[in-house]
Amino acid sequence: MSRTDVLIVMGSLTDYAVMKRAEEVLTEFGVSFHTKIVSAHRTPALLFEEGTKAQQSYRVVIAGAGGAAHLPGMIASLTTLPVIGVPVAVGTLNGEDALLSIVQMPEGVPVATVAIGNAGNAALLAIQILAVHSTDLENKLAAFKQKLVKKIEDQAKQIRG
Amino acid sequence: MSRTDVLIVMGSLTDYAVMKRAEEVLTEFGVSFHTKIVSAHRTPALLFEEGTKAQQSYRVVIAGAGGAAHLPGMIASLTTLPVIGVPVAVGTLNGEDALLSIVQMPEGVPVATVAIGNAGNAALLAIQILAVHSTDLENKLAAFKQKLVKKIEDQAKQIRG
Amino acid sequence: MSRTDVLIVMGSLTDYAVMKRAEEVLTEFGVSFHTKIVSAHRTPALLFEEGTKAQQSYRVVIAGAGGAAHLPGMIASLTTLPVIGVPVAVGTLNGEDALLSIVQMPEGVPVATVAIGNAGNAALLAIQILAVHSTDLENKLAAFKQKLVKKIEDQAKQIRG
Amino acid sequence: MSRTDVLIVMGSLTDYAVMKRAEEVLTEFGVSFHTKIVSAHRTPALLFEEGTKAQQSYRVVIAGAGGAAHLPGMIASLTTLPVIGVPVAVGTLNGEDALLSIVQMPEGVPVATVAIGNAGNAALLAIQILAVHSTDLENKLAAFKQKLVKKIEDQAKQIRG
Amino acid sequence: MSRTDVLIVMGSLTDYAVMKRAEEVLTEFGVSFHTKIVSAHRTPALLFEEGTKAQQSYRVVIAGAGGAAHLPGMIASLTTLPVIGVPVAVGTLNGEDALLSIVQMPEGVPVATVAIGNAGNAALLAIQILAVHSTDLENKLAAFKQKLVKKIEDQAKQIRG
Amino acid sequence: MSRTDVLIVMGSLTDYAVMKRAEEVLTEFGVSFHTKIVSAHRTPALLFEEGTKAQQSYRVVIAGAGGAAHLPGMIASLTTLPVIGVPVAVGTLNGEDALLSIVQMPEGVPVATVAIGNAGNAALLAIQILAVHSTDLENKLAAFKQKLVKKIEDQAKQIRG
Amino acid sequence: MSRTDVLIVMGSLTDYAVMKRAEEVLTEFGVSFHTKIVSAHRTPALLFEEGTKAQQSYRVVIAGAGGAAHLPGMIASLTTLPVIGVPVAVGTLNGEDALLSIVQMPEGVPVATVAIGNAGNAALLAIQILAVHSTDLENKLAAFKQKLVKKIEDQAKQIRG
Amino acid sequence: MSRTDVLIVMGSLTDYAVMKRAEEVLTEFGVSFHTKIVSAHRTPALLFEEGTKAQQSYRVVIAGAGGAAHLPGMIASLTTLPVIGVPVAVGTLNGEDALLSIVQMPEGVPVATVAIGNAGNAALLAIQILAVHSTDLENKLAAFKQKLVKKIEDQAKQIRG
Repeated sequence: MSRTDVLIVMGSLTDYAVMKRAEEVLTEFGVSFHTKIVSAHRTPALLFEEGTKAQQSYRVVIAGAGGAAHLPGMIASLTTLPVIGVPVAVGTLNGEDALLSIVQMPEGVPVATVAIGNAGNAALLAIQILAVHSTDLENKLAAFKQKLVKKIEDQAKQIRG
Repeated sequence: MSRTDVLIVMGSLTDYAVMKRAEEVLTEFGVSFHTKIVSAHRTPALLFEEGTKAQQSYRVVIAGAGGAAHLPGMIASLTTLPVIGVPVAVGTLNGEDALLSIVQMPEGVPVATVAIGNAGNAALLAIQILAVHSTDLENKLAAFKQKLVKKIEDQAKQIRG
Repeated sequence: MSRTDVLIVMGSLTDYAVMKRAEEVLTEFGVSFHTKIVSAHRTPALLFEEGTKAQQSYRVVIAGAGGAAHLPGMIASLTTLPVIGVPVAVGTLNGEDALLSIVQMPEGVPVATVAIGNAGNAALLAIQILAVHSTDLENKLAAFKQKLVKKIEDQAKQIRG
Repeated sequence: MSRTDVLIVMGSLTDYAVMKRAEEVLTEFGVSFHTKIVSAHRTPALLFEEGTKAQQSYRVVIAGAGGAAHLPGMIASLTTLPVIGVPVAVGTLNGEDALLSIVQMPEGVPVATVAIGNAGNAALLAIQILAVHSTDLENKLAAFKQKLVKKIEDQAKQIRG
Repeated sequence: MSRTDVLIVMGSLTDYAVMKRAEEVLTEFGVSFHTKIVSAHRTPALLFEEGTKAQQSYRVVIAGAGGAAHLPGMIASLTTLPVIGVPVAVGTLNGEDALLSIVQMPEGVPVATVAIGNAGNAALLAIQILAVHSTDLENKLAAFKQKLVKKIEDQAKQIRG
Repeated sequence: MSRTDVLIVMGSLTDYAVMKRAEEVLTEFGVSFHTKIVSAHRTPALLFEEGTKAQQSYRVVIAGAGGAAHLPGMIASLTTLPVIGVPVAVGTLNGEDALLSIVQMPEGVPVATVAIGNAGNAALLAIQILAVHSTDLENKLAAFKQKLVKKIEDQAKQIRG
Repeated sequence: MSRTDVLIVMGSLTDYAVMKRAEEVLTEFGVSFHTKIVSAHRTPALLFEEGTKAQQSYRVVIAGAGGAAHLPGMIASLTTLPVIGVPVAVGTLNGEDALLSIVQMPEGVPVATVAIGNAGNAALLAIQILAVHSTDLENKLAAFKQKLVKKIEDQAKQIRG
Repeated sequence: MSRTDVLIVMGSLTDYAVMKRAEEVLTEFGVSFHTKIVSAHRTPALLFEEGTKAQQSYRVVIAGAGGAAHLPGMIASLTTLPVIGVPVAVGTLNGEDALLSIVQMPEGVPVATVAIGNAGNAALLAIQILAVHSTDLENKLAAFKQKLVKKIEDQAKQIRG
């Protein structure tokens, strides 16, 4: 099929400082993606449009938002694609408001929530989802896990030095 | 004009145990209202429809929701009517998730948030808003304030007894 | 009538860094306002005076305060005008103390609470309240919503660039 | 002088279930008191009256309130008597809202805050304050401390049994 | 391939009261699953065994745990399958400890976290992941979304009644 | 009698940056005081000694501490003088740990807790306590309240400017 | 030497409902112990006596307390024995106050804190400490770990049934 | 036996900024140690290996980790040695996530938790554990306690200066 693998959406340009890490990780794994700014609160018509038509164009959605973070949950209400939510810390509450706004969804409409500010993990989760039917990505993930081990081994040398 | 004064919306029937208090207070003040169940997450099309057309039919919206409570903010994204949000305590977090999901809206799209579970105050706030151009409601609110005083005076007698 | 539209009050001069955003937004919409410093704790007589006579001079009150933030609730106890509360983050608790002190009002005396530090939204909420009986303001708010959409569209171009 | 020792105020009759413990402790120490219901939000005129004239009739004030608990701080704004605040747990937030609303007062207007729901300690603190110039009360407090020791010793026997 | 679709693991039998909802939902969608009790802390050898070999037998893992909830994250460390974490509320902290223990994973090892106690959503998320390559499941999810709409419409009738 | 009015104690020298404000306020009111460093955890013998003999040398104790802040409560266990606790924000938890460690005392041993970091209010509370039997201090406090009013009036001029 | 292995102390008899679990576990491992009620706040002299002389009579101390829980930290200030703290949930704050009061000790005086209400783990930790120089206890702990595995295996059968 | 006294493990090199304080304190007391980087999430095989063989090579383990901090609890699942956990503050939540992830362990597998970021106390706790059977270390700890007293006495001079 001709679907792009991942749609990355975020509520505003300021979220991009956090969300671009998702682009980097997806690029590293050779996974195709589009990035869009869609504000649940400021562009609801665009939200409705993008959420509704995501199904035909993408396989997984990554949505980042801060504060009263409604974007991930609203996208999830409009599609049956897996939606991954990234709480972004804005304002004074350290991202706790975004975390609760994203993760505490009612039964029927899940959002796969990752750690506050951890767009890299959102990308990895998207890749893991795509890898369920891709031996190629499964192999890349296995290699990536080996690199994590190597990285820790290298760090270990620095404190032994 | 022929607008109804207040639209009360809530995310599910279970919220009605909390939200019916708003109906009682509005009724007491003779303020007209409609009550609807509109789930931001389960009926997004209905949400967009109700949110978009609210402007022509109502003057104020009261929206109650729990957990990742997106209903008040999403209604606010679709209308310029004043939207009053009632955080409903569901699940284990005592309504803290609903409070933060409702109150922490970004600039441009306010939600007038009241205390957790306090649908009565949501109704009073709606009445105060309507009273800005209604001497009749302004008088009723003044009388209501007198009744609050009387109530406390009656309570005071009980501990002096 | 000759009432000024909005009274902005705050607990101390340091709150002005946050609250002046309300002035900017009201000015942008051509809504008249007065700004005053009234401390619930340091000038209770002034609080009582301003709260009591607000009804005859204004239509909506915006009150900002930090810490044990009593100003919005106490103004609300003295008037039946709609009172909008802005929690201001002072001290070490990130504004959580102010948020709870403002939003958790008992039935009978609501405060329309907005996000921590979001005086711009307080102004917008005041305008939405005034727009309930003003087609002019209703139109301006509709135009404002269009500008929000435009702003997001402009932001979108920056990440596509 | 003919002042009564302690004024106990609370925001509503429901607080009395917690606050009557203060009466019991004061009675045990032979300290005179009056108990009143004064709601900061529902009876602001009464609040201003009681707060302003407390100075001539009492030596210490104990004030209990829940939720957005403004009573202790507002009494403190109207008198220079020591004001002791008792956070009362009402609603869903376990008294955290009341605690922060009472304790986080700005410089200039302190409230002596005790533990959530601990009206007994509010009474003891009032007695300690009165004991600063009363050898009789100082002796009673010393005896009370001995009784606390005895009570723990008696408890200890039960687990050794 | 002959993999079972979903592995459900939980830390102890008491978690089953929450986690069986995942079984119900998976069954409703005709998705195959195995349920196991694997305690990260009490059966670490079993954890390592199950985590390591999950890849060859399953497509998605759902892991529920309470308190210092390490099971989801540790399974995620041992496999590249998507791991969905369900925070279970045990003890006195309402599931906040489990939520943070599950969601705050470091980059490299994501856990797709759902709401506290929401095992039904964990199952739906697993189905959404499987549906990325199954038109059958995609259709079932679309039908399920229609049922959610119907359910809300039925609820709406009850308050209009 | 020849008692000094106030004993100021704190857990370590780093607390002095916060606690010296108490000295300034007491000095401004002409109230005598001694300042000591007494660590509940590092100098328990000194704590025991100072706590036990405070009664004969002072009238009120102000105790500041951070983290697991035991100093105020332990002093209170050793004397029947009024003990005022100042939570000091150290480490990463913004003083929340100190606040709860100080305020949540069991019945029998109250600590009069003020806002996080508000040593100035601790001093004012001590003065209010001393003023219960001092017309001179009562007058000074009345004058101080007037100065607070004046200060707000001066601030008000700056925003009207 | 003739030291008893473990001293269990708690702040009041009501804590015994939680703390007796420590007695059960120690008994199961054949570890000797004494249990005492010592209130940091109500029996400070006893606290100082028991804390000071613990070194000569015991090897490890387990201390349980709730609210502003000072007992574990104060015992730790008086001895160099390892002190294990058990936060007990009393009052409305779910044990969060006790947890922070016990765990957030300053450098120099550690308290080994276990989960809220988990006196069983306090006992196990004491046994692990004693096992550092006891092959017998080390063997018993290894056998205990096997029993944990067995218990989970038995639980697993119940859901397979 | 030829065991090294203490094994220090941490989840990543960035934790070393906090954890090196443990090395300093252990060195000061002449206690032998090894420091290793072992990530529960990135090097689970290494975790399993180190956790399993720790028993034969060490007497006490100190484990530091941040975020969803699983390292201390997982080491504790693999050994019966006393495991001391150090919550490290990483990300936006001030170490609250790490604290709860480490301290809230289920019965059967305790972790001796110290204050957020307090690796010095982790080392002291390890020394106290080793001192249970070492008169030499017991004496050194007694001398250390004297130095703490001296330090506070020196600080006291600075404010009296």
